[in-house]
Amino acid sequence: MENQKEKTTIVLFSGDLDKAIAAYIIANGAAAYDHEVTIFHTFWGLNAMRKDAQVPVKKGLLEKAFGWMMPRGANKLGLSNMNMLGMGPEMIKHVMKKHNALSLPQLIELAQEQGVKLVACTMTMDLLGLQQEELLDGLEYAGVAAYLGDATQAKVNLFI
Amino acid sequence: MENQKEKTTIVLFSGDLDKAIAAYIIANGAAAYDHEVTIFHTFWGLNAMRKDAQVPVKKGLLEKAFGWMMPRGANKLGLSNMNMLGMGPEMIKHVMKKHNALSLPQLIELAQEQGVKLVACTMTMDLLGLQQEELLDGLEYAGVAAYLGDATQAKVNLFI
Amino acid sequence: MENQKEKTTIVLFSGDLDKAIAAYIIANGAAAYDHEVTIFHTFWGLNAMRKDAQVPVKKGLLEKAFGWMMPRGANKLGLSNMNMLGMGPEMIKHVMKKHNALSLPQLIELAQEQGVKLVACTMTMDLLGLQQEELLDGLEYAGVAAYLGDATQAKVNLFI
Repeated sequence: MENQKEKTTIVLFSGDLDKAIAAYIIANGAAAYDHEVTIFHTFWGLNAMRKDAQVPVKKGLLEKAFGWMMPRGANKLGLSNMNMLGMGPEMIKHVMKKHNALSLPQLIELAQEQGVKLVACTMTMDLLGLQQEELLDGLEYAGVAAYLGDATQAKVNLFI
Repeated sequence: MENQKEKTTIVLFSGDLDKAIAAYIIANGAAAYDHEVTIFHTFWGLNAMRKDAQVPVKKGLLEKAFGWMMPRGANKLGLSNMNMLGMGPEMIKHVMKKHNALSLPQLIELAQEQGVKLVACTMTMDLLGLQQEELLDGLEYAGVAAYLGDATQAKVNLFI
Repeated sequence: MENQKEKTTIVLFSGDLDKAIAAYIIANGAAAYDHEVTIFHTFWGLNAMRKDAQVPVKKGLLEKAFGWMMPRGANKLGLSNMNMLGMGPEMIKHVMKKHNALSLPQLIELAQEQGVKLVACTMTMDLLGLQQEELLDGLEYAGVAAYLGDATQAKVNLFI
């Protein structure tokens, strides 16, 4: 027991840029304090895990529609608030750059470097027709059972 | 201590279909792993607990207005994202059916069968003028004190 | 161990009136049960901490724009749902008054009286150009490290 690391889990449900930034700042902070950290990406939170480029995979019509309507990757997310037809995200990115804050893609990279476990929810992938080739490398694929396994051992569990 | 069950609590504040589905999937998962699970429905989260049919109860004008404006039951909820004037929820329901995923009303029924404690926040009911007759059978009625009593004994506490 | 108080933390990320009310009701409830409670205000959650009146401080153009676009104080927040061009918040405030429920500014005051630790996220303040003079008196100023320090000692940790 003494040697066990603190554990922290985050369910990232939201596809909003600002919420994803908050999730990754908390995750990177916890990892820096040597916590074992899991981010479980479900529903719209999976959008932050999509690759920028379109990946040629076979899909049905509805799945193509979801793929087309949802933002492709961490650079394309909108804001939960003051999105203003896309001006809001650019303002936030601008001030973050000005203050030398890490961008969301950089925060995700840092999380991977720090060993944060990034999980893609397989049930959501099925529903929305997202395939592993379309998501970032280095993810784990799991469902709610694996999330609960981590969460019951963690002290800090957030739903974002 | 050895014999105590793990406890999990969820505050369901949101009235969005996708968030309610996420809450009930986590709750049912935890119940399947033999956790004692509480879902505390507050604010818009109460809408998922409303009966489909209109129930004749005496109300003031403002309470009638709230009752009329808020979605009546788990089948009527919108999405947090890509709602698209109601087309989004139908798309989600369609793909869930296609993948044999349980619908929200089915997830709620399963939760009740598994003994998940479904609580309606009495303060919100007072504010919005919702009466017990208008909500599903088998709910408990309580306030923030009861929620905190459960949450302080639980390891996984989420606000959705 | 025996004498230690229960601890509860809330990250208030949202700038929505209804979510801020929920956060402060839970926080005040927990404080009434003698928990040590921290509310960490980040991103739009900082808007609830702004003073009503404009405070003359030196700012760049972009920071002025943020200051002008974001709601100034707990009385100006919108709703997450049914905002209806500002009619929703007035309806909620009206029913809360009618039922003798505390308003958000009163809930914040009560929290301060009960010793709830209200923290303003310094990183967000930097990004949005908010200065201490513009925020309520009696706040603490800290970052994610301090939040994690509190959260790892708490049983109830919510992200709202």
